[in-house]
Amino acid sequence: MSKITILSDIKSDKSFEEKLPNINHKEFDKVIQSRRSIRVFTKDKIPHDIIKKSLNNSLKAPTSSNLQTWEIYWAKSNIIKDRIVNACLSQPAAKTAKELFVFVSRPDNWKRNNQMMIDHLKNKENPPSSVLRYYQKITKIAYNQGFFNIFGFLKKIYVTVYGLFKVIPREPTSFNDMKVWSQKTTALACQNFMLSMRAYGFDTCPMEGFDSYRLKKILKLPKKAQICMVIGAGKRDPSGVYGKQFRFDNSLFIKEV
Amino acid sequence: MSKITILSDIKSDKSFEEKLPNINHKEFDKVIQSRRSIRVFTKDKIPHDIIKKSLNNSLKAPTSSNLQTWEIYWAKSNIIKDRIVNACLSQPAAKTAKELFVFVSRPDNWKRNNQMMIDHLKNKENPPSSVLRYYQKITKIAYNQGFFNIFGFLKKIYVTVYGLFKVIPREPTSFNDMKVWSQKTTALACQNFMLSMRAYGFDTCPMEGFDSYRLKKILKLPKKAQICMVIGAGKRDPSGVYGKQFRFDNSLFIKEV
Repeated sequence: MSKITILSDIKSDKSFEEKLPNINHKEFDKVIQSRRSIRVFTKDKIPHDIIKKSLNNSLKAPTSSNLQTWEIYWAKSNIIKDRIVNACLSQPAAKTAKELFVFVSRPDNWKRNNQMMIDHLKNKENPPSSVLRYYQKITKIAYNQGFFNIFGFLKKIYVTVYGLFKVIPREPTSFNDMKVWSQKTTALACQNFMLSMRAYGFDTCPMEGFDSYRLKKILKLPKKAQICMVIGAGKRDPSGVYGKQFRFDNSLFIKEV
Repeated sequence: MSKITILSDIKSDKSFEEKLPNINHKEFDKVIQSRRSIRVFTKDKIPHDIIKKSLNNSLKAPTSSNLQTWEIYWAKSNIIKDRIVNACLSQPAAKTAKELFVFVSRPDNWKRNNQMMIDHLKNKENPPSSVLRYYQKITKIAYNQGFFNIFGFLKKIYVTVYGLFKVIPREPTSFNDMKVWSQKTTALACQNFMLSMRAYGFDTCPMEGFDSYRLKKILKLPKKAQICMVIGAGKRDPSGVYGKQFRFDNSLFIKEV
């Protein structure tokens, strides 16, 4: 097995520069500070251009190896919406939500997306060779777990032994690891979405209390697809915030080492 | 076993209102649009107040059941930093980073944090009864997997049978589910951090290509702790962006149903 060096040697062959904007960070801080999980929404509509803008903002989140193993289902039909509300145990944040979005992670799509990435690179005039090599070799070793996880199991043995002597990336070596990998990427998109809705004057509630089996059936998703979060959105009803945001003291979580 | 209704009936007993700020969403969009994964940083320092502000912004992300099973390690000692760079295979985004942060998910801390939440509620004058009940009963059923996952296994049987007839939240019923649960929450905090750094004029690179075993040893973390991401931060070097952000067409991921 060749040396696994996920992301350690991916680089572009030519330079590229992006102009950075001046940003008023106070506006950003207001977004962060005023975002709360809202459990009751008013009947006000969310303009569709704001929804589209926020969905677009979601997919600007970083995504592992740029493999974009995420999907967002926007429940526009009332029948689907009612069924999703039901699968969320009819909790107020779902029931009163003007719009409902299901963020889904698709670890099962990594191979399709990897091939699409190769096709995209090959269509370019001078595809950067190290990037092409990355998608043709490295990701295929990193994310492939093989039939019945046999390759993942072999990788696990390999990294355990090799790792005794040298630094080596260890995960993913199972479908459970693939789930974690893809769910993390999808969660980054969720956070972009929630902040974006807030920036545009609307609010959200991320929900994890749902019947994942039923949700997958409603959305006609395969077994390996994973529901990340259901996000209810709308205009904040004053009764929808249950109190001041409470966090334990930061010193419990932020460690300087 | 009592009916599992994670989050479906948590509510406050008294009303609370928060004044919403007016936000210039253009500033927020600039943050989203200019955030890129930066693979080379300059030697410029990041003022510590900006780091502290961004760490604080991280922990304002929503967290499942408000159990805050996250931790952030800020590598301040050069020895620790060098060891983390090494565990990240010395990739440029780590090696050139002015500051390194390891975002860790701690599914193993749910019980401690749940008890802290109960203690916090009991210290209040009139603790909202439904919230107290939530942490005294519901979360204990939802997140407890028992010795050798026995309770999780029993829950899995229960939800599978009960779920044939009625809507029921299904996960988490194993430590693997707990990993996904806690990693999602931690990823939300990661995204807040990366956006916050950008809003303050600095940049980041989230890394998953690392030796998780060595990282845990460096940070003296127990086996059950999970590394979510290592995030390098600093001032963007023009050579640190490898090209225009590339995403497949949104229609592949955003589905109106």
